[in-house]
Amino acid sequence: MRNVVIHDPTLRDGQHAVKHQLGADALRRYAEAADTARIPVVEVGHGNGLGASSFQVGSAAVSDDEMLSTVRESLRHSRMGVFMLPGWGTCGDLRKAIDHGADVVRIGVHATESSLAERHLGFLREAGAEAHCVLMMSHMASPAELAEHAAQAVGFGAQGVGIMDSAGHFLSSDVTARISAMVDAVGTVPVIFHGHNNLGMAVANSVAAVDAGASIIDGCARGFGAGAGNTQLEVLVPVLERHGYATGIDLYALLDAADLAERELMPAPPVTASMSIVSGLAGVFSGFKHRVVELSALAGVDPRDVFFELGRRQSIAGQEDLIVDVVAELSARQTTR
Amino acid sequence: MRNVVIHDPTLRDGQHAVKHQLGADALRRYAEAADTARIPVVEVGHGNGLGASSFQVGSAAVSDDEMLSTVRESLRHSRMGVFMLPGWGTCGDLRKAIDHGADVVRIGVHATESSLAERHLGFLREAGAEAHCVLMMSHMASPAELAEHAAQAVGFGAQGVGIMDSAGHFLSSDVTARISAMVDAVGTVPVIFHGHNNLGMAVANSVAAVDAGASIIDGCARGFGAGAGNTQLEVLVPVLERHGYATGIDLYALLDAADLAERELMPAPPVTASMSIVSGLAGVFSGFKHRVVELSALAGVDPRDVFFELGRRQSIAGQEDLIVDVVAELSARQTTR
Repeated sequence: MRNVVIHDPTLRDGQHAVKHQLGADALRRYAEAADTARIPVVEVGHGNGLGASSFQVGSAAVSDDEMLSTVRESLRHSRMGVFMLPGWGTCGDLRKAIDHGADVVRIGVHATESSLAERHLGFLREAGAEAHCVLMMSHMASPAELAEHAAQAVGFGAQGVGIMDSAGHFLSSDVTARISAMVDAVGTVPVIFHGHNNLGMAVANSVAAVDAGASIIDGCARGFGAGAGNTQLEVLVPVLERHGYATGIDLYALLDAADLAERELMPAPPVTASMSIVSGLAGVFSGFKHRVVELSALAGVDPRDVFFELGRRQSIAGQEDLIVDVVAELSARQTTR
Repeated sequence: MRNVVIHDPTLRDGQHAVKHQLGADALRRYAEAADTARIPVVEVGHGNGLGASSFQVGSAAVSDDEMLSTVRESLRHSRMGVFMLPGWGTCGDLRKAIDHGADVVRIGVHATESSLAERHLGFLREAGAEAHCVLMMSHMASPAELAEHAAQAVGFGAQGVGIMDSAGHFLSSDVTARISAMVDAVGTVPVIFHGHNNLGMAVANSVAAVDAGASIIDGCARGFGAGAGNTQLEVLVPVLERHGYATGIDLYALLDAADLAERELMPAPPVTASMSIVSGLAGVFSGFKHRVVELSALAGVDPRDVFFELGRRQSIAGQEDLIVDVVAELSARQTTR
């Protein structure tokens, strides 16, 4: 029976759904429940990772220091994970996280920009933490490109490399092709898959990833995350077990942790609403949603057309200015019809 | 490009989530929206089908007559579907539905009891309606058994035969095996798949069904249905299209219909809560939930243990008495520990 390591970013990716406002009590109580369930890695942080709390993307209710010390104190069996986007956080933030006892440190970069993680992966290798590199918006890169960037990240010192389906765009065959190529490229280094549920495929895609050789899979309690949410953790685990993969997680305690998360972390569990489906189909980062809807309403254009056009233009996070351009163009086209 | 016929039981299976209280206005407005989206078949009725409204299982807010005439008047392109469980409804109810203009009439029976549908399928063949036979709780029967009962239903006059994953228990490989066997057994007669989302697999299982030869797939707006809900229709359609299957449905109008359904039909979209996951894993009809939870609380036993034990005993709807037995036994075991 092959083993799969479950990595739980409920207390990091879920922050996106509540504008980073999880309080210390909520962090502690969920971390304790996850620990009781023997979830191998519990990730915590601002939604955008270490050092990201700011006026522009949203200030977290709790500082990085307090998040890290709170979760560290709550874990007896589980390892603690953190996430960082180079540019948003620094090696100083990584140092701080390691001093707080972070065991697994993930560096996130755009799918084809593994080189941005070189310095941080090198730093982590010297500091002795388990270093992962995750390629985001991975539907925008081919299997061969992802394999190349995964191998490069391993060369920089990554001890785990993976892909995030940030836009929730993948069908299972897309995942199979990408994970297989990456596994071929990195040999025994664990390969990671992180799904989103915009097209209702998160659980099935995670199974496809494991079938193709991935051995670290992410899931959040009730799918807690922005928009359609992440892979639902307490569904993923028993489904993987039914496929013959071992997780070492206690099912009842896992369900208890998910019930606690629904009661104490979230106003309501994620729903796959129409705009999430459209952003998933278009392959556009769902974080664009509020601005797309707002600007489309102002200009009297259909926000769904805006999403599909943004997808055709291969827009990525950080290119919010493109939304204005697309809305203006679609509006002009309507006027001249 | 192969064609898939989408069958939409939002206004019938969704009734389970609101104790059969959809009003005539809600029925009309959703039917009109579904018609605009060109959904091929719009099914309406009490959750348990024609003739089922009663004190015991719940009285519908609107009579069968009013449901049928309301939806019939709202459809210009879509065909109208109805559902009936022999014993709950009669040939008189079928007659009434046909007189009201029902185009597609489904007879539901337990997975291995196709013979119960013989008389009704014969009646429908003579009456000239398109007759379907759907085998419920189909995870309790082997592919060979389902193939045998599908072929038998065709012999009785069914022009479509299918399976319902009533407990939401299937993994995709289960669906592939069952649909393939049925397609082999019935040749050119359309094969139907109706999924539930207890294990997050409804969309993926529906794709697997089509890949295996099914050509009629059920889905409900936002997955509207009891517990974890059904296959989410407005996700299913574009995902099928991305797999290369044509549905003839207008995506934007479909999303509009789903938005309307969320606003006007349901208090909130379905959530895959822990007890739904357990009933799916156990392979037990989710309609048992309230009674399992209630009796377990009274007896101080874990309702999850009750569900798994009911699964081991292969309980089916109508065997609610078994819940009392199982709860009592588990309670006695605890006491004697």
